[in-house]
Amino acid sequence: MNLNGCSIVAGRPTPGCGSAFHAVRPDSGESIEPSYHSVGPAEVDAAVQAAYAAFQSYGRSTGKVRGEFLRAIARRLDATVDGFVARTPLETGLPEARVRAEAARTTSQLRLFADLVDDGSWVDARIDQGDPARKPAPKPDVRSMLRPTGPVAVFGAANFPLAFSVAGGDTASALAAGCPVIVKAHPAHPGTSELAGRALSDAARECGLHDGVFSLLFDSGYDVGRALVGHPLVKSVAFTGSRSGGLALAHIAAARPEPIPVFAEMSSVNPVFILPDALAARASELAEALYASVTTGMGQLCTCPGLVIMLRSPALEPFVESLAARMTSTEQGVMLNSGVAQAYREGLDRLSKKAGVSRLTTPDSGAALWRVSSAAFTSDPALAAEVFGPSTMIVECESWDEMLDCARGLEGQLTATVHADDSEWLQCSDLLHVLEERAGRLILNGVPTGVEVGPAIVHGGPFPATFDGRSTSVGSRAILRFVRPVCYQGFPNNLLPDELKDSNPLSIRRMVNGAVVEPR
Amino acid sequence: MNLNGCSIVAGRPTPGCGSAFHAVRPDSGESIEPSYHSVGPAEVDAAVQAAYAAFQSYGRSTGKVRGEFLRAIARRLDATVDGFVARTPLETGLPEARVRAEAARTTSQLRLFADLVDDGSWVDARIDQGDPARKPAPKPDVRSMLRPTGPVAVFGAANFPLAFSVAGGDTASALAAGCPVIVKAHPAHPGTSELAGRALSDAARECGLHDGVFSLLFDSGYDVGRALVGHPLVKSVAFTGSRSGGLALAHIAAARPEPIPVFAEMSSVNPVFILPDALAARASELAEALYASVTTGMGQLCTCPGLVIMLRSPALEPFVESLAARMTSTEQGVMLNSGVAQAYREGLDRLSKKAGVSRLTTPDSGAALWRVSSAAFTSDPALAAEVFGPSTMIVECESWDEMLDCARGLEGQLTATVHADDSEWLQCSDLLHVLEERAGRLILNGVPTGVEVGPAIVHGGPFPATFDGRSTSVGSRAILRFVRPVCYQGFPNNLLPDELKDSNPLSIRRMVNGAVVEPR
Repeated sequence: MNLNGCSIVAGRPTPGCGSAFHAVRPDSGESIEPSYHSVGPAEVDAAVQAAYAAFQSYGRSTGKVRGEFLRAIARRLDATVDGFVARTPLETGLPEARVRAEAARTTSQLRLFADLVDDGSWVDARIDQGDPARKPAPKPDVRSMLRPTGPVAVFGAANFPLAFSVAGGDTASALAAGCPVIVKAHPAHPGTSELAGRALSDAARECGLHDGVFSLLFDSGYDVGRALVGHPLVKSVAFTGSRSGGLALAHIAAARPEPIPVFAEMSSVNPVFILPDALAARASELAEALYASVTTGMGQLCTCPGLVIMLRSPALEPFVESLAARMTSTEQGVMLNSGVAQAYREGLDRLSKKAGVSRLTTPDSGAALWRVSSAAFTSDPALAAEVFGPSTMIVECESWDEMLDCARGLEGQLTATVHADDSEWLQCSDLLHVLEERAGRLILNGVPTGVEVGPAIVHGGPFPATFDGRSTSVGSRAILRFVRPVCYQGFPNNLLPDELKDSNPLSIRRMVNGAVVEPR
Repeated sequence: MNLNGCSIVAGRPTPGCGSAFHAVRPDSGESIEPSYHSVGPAEVDAAVQAAYAAFQSYGRSTGKVRGEFLRAIARRLDATVDGFVARTPLETGLPEARVRAEAARTTSQLRLFADLVDDGSWVDARIDQGDPARKPAPKPDVRSMLRPTGPVAVFGAANFPLAFSVAGGDTASALAAGCPVIVKAHPAHPGTSELAGRALSDAARECGLHDGVFSLLFDSGYDVGRALVGHPLVKSVAFTGSRSGGLALAHIAAARPEPIPVFAEMSSVNPVFILPDALAARASELAEALYASVTTGMGQLCTCPGLVIMLRSPALEPFVESLAARMTSTEQGVMLNSGVAQAYREGLDRLSKKAGVSRLTTPDSGAALWRVSSAAFTSDPALAAEVFGPSTMIVECESWDEMLDCARGLEGQLTATVHADDSEWLQCSDLLHVLEERAGRLILNGVPTGVEVGPAIVHGGPFPATFDGRSTSVGSRAILRFVRPVCYQGFPNNLLPDELKDSNPLSIRRMVNGAVVEPR
């Protein structure tokens, strides 16, 4: 497919007249055609106004309509996979196999949400029937359900150019909820963004939806993002990226006359705790699993394990040696873009200058392994900061209490992992309790990477893992970010949404007078 | 019951050594014994530290334990009703009948949450079973449920000294969720607060709970509130009160190193739209219902209707005259406290100086009725600000479009009401759509006051009705403010919470592999 270098404002290809930029090959530094242009305030406003206009119909569309839309997007993305395979590796350095796998994940996410809204019961419909004869006052008829909040600004992430970008989980869950989406494309993969955006826009047209339901805006800088988050008709923000980026958006959102929620997935070091019996039983297996988890996707995953916290034990030295050897032998890879590569180098530099931190890998190896005592670790909070890339740090504890102290000192995390043998379960339940306060997902005897997309997954955690630690950006619960309960009192059936009519025309599960009633 | 004038820090009566204050009779201005003292930073820290310690056990307690606790609180409040009847009218000016009704509502709220957590299914337990044989990668076992977030700071409201104060809906829902509570008592009803706090504290002891599960702190000023919201171990805030108060807390919460959510129910004018056919059919009934709704509790209800938006029609003048006569004949009542009374007088003063606003009641009447054209109303946003008290404003529209413009110009509201005849339903669905974006509860042919507490109710709305417009502070959904999803991957049954064990020992409704499974 030929790329046209255009933003998409409510279905219309829009060249933009701001500063020009190109995708850049991270392996060679070469620019890739075509050029893209930043859009200006007028295009931002047009996209948001169109989104708000679309919300008037799309926000009240049935689950079937939204389900068809999400499936149409998935079909068009499936049909675009060759386009992604040709373009995405050039602008991200990601290999073809990864692009294919990520495309499959992206469409499966869309279909997960399509199934959810097709079924329809997710809206938590509740009916408390009235009783005009009640004393001292008649009891009113009160019904409620979850309704979409309005246009959502989605910020594409660099590290998942498909699954967390234009047509990624944020977009899928917002559209499923009934919210139009305006995507601010990540400037590092504009070609991939355009391909996905055209698939989305074409799917909206195919389904006969208001074309404001989706827009895609390019910008080489920050102005479009700022304008989007500040626009009075934008009602929430979804973002995956750096802590500084997420906090900047949260500050803009909080300073609005009407503050809005920001669902920013920002930073996590995903600590892994290894207990001695587990280590003794399977040291080499653990080293291999950890190595693979740290280096998958060049460590550029939100769930990359950046800390390995261990108790001193006889099996520790051989484990560390074997992991160090694996990490040292890693070939240098290509990172997503020059910004990510530079931030990674700076992170390594910072660690290499820290007293008490020793580097177990050579400076020219493709992955970095560090070692520090728990005493040094707990005395310097900077050691627990995320280094985005294939780097991990072993923290050696002298005692169980030191290990618990390490856990207690952690900030909020997306994940926390414990490796423990059956014999250690009693002991590790204390540790799991400490970690549960600090993480959205606890993993026993596994690795944090490889997020399983399904109804039960949680990809979110206490601040700063996520700005709103009560949310997840992966899995069907992600839809709950973009809705609020709306209550209808004393309404006749013909003015109620279908979900709340007496006859239950959509056959959904509802709560009636406090008891759950299954559809027939 | 003799009052001891003490704060309660984790079960311990604590005199406090800060500035002294008394309750003041709003009718006479007399002080009422005993004196109360503000606590200092040490007591705040002790209460929060104890709450966090209690969270370690209470946060993992079963629904049965929490249900028993909530019922024990309700029983002890029931046994304290005579105490409330003796004290609460003195410090709030509320009549005995209201105090009795509010006490009944308070205990029924506690029992609603007791039933909810007894049943246990509210935790949204989800199980995605693993498949070790899946290709290319094994599928992990992933389970999740809603878990409490941690200690909650609750701010007592002036206008519901029982139902939105120490043992009110915020406390009940937080305790139901598994979160310990530290209440900052409203200084206008310290005796009522002490009685409720002692009931709560005694119930915790009766149930054998960690005494940090509840604390009650007095303060004549703002220091205790600021310290609570800024304390690193406090994880959320619940507040009902003024817009300025709610925003001040939200700013403190946002400026923390770890920002926390603030569930502040702040301000609402609860617009009522009256369509001509409805007016023609039942003008005098409407005037009577509206009069009662505006003046109930001296207009000191969050849902008091402060705007009545009407289309010019033949029935309008007689309706306005009859409402004006009713309002004028209202006797001056006693407001909750001198602060509320003064803010009310200032609000009336402000309106009386507005060009285009005419006052239809005499200055010495106990309720105020105003009239303004929709043109004047839409050109001055200050006219739509809440005047807390028995005051309401008729906005007269020349056309249907003007009425829609009035609706479009509204800020977020707790409620929006429409009176329409069957013949007007088609027309009013446009209006209802506009209002749905701006309100948490839509009422047809009723009044907004008299919030029905049940599973379906929503008492919350877009900003500034509520700081987080996706939440409700009344009804069983209020518990969702104090929880977050937590995910357990690869856990053996004995390390999982009961809610997620294979055998479903609590017999709760769960989602297994995407399908809802009812308990047997």
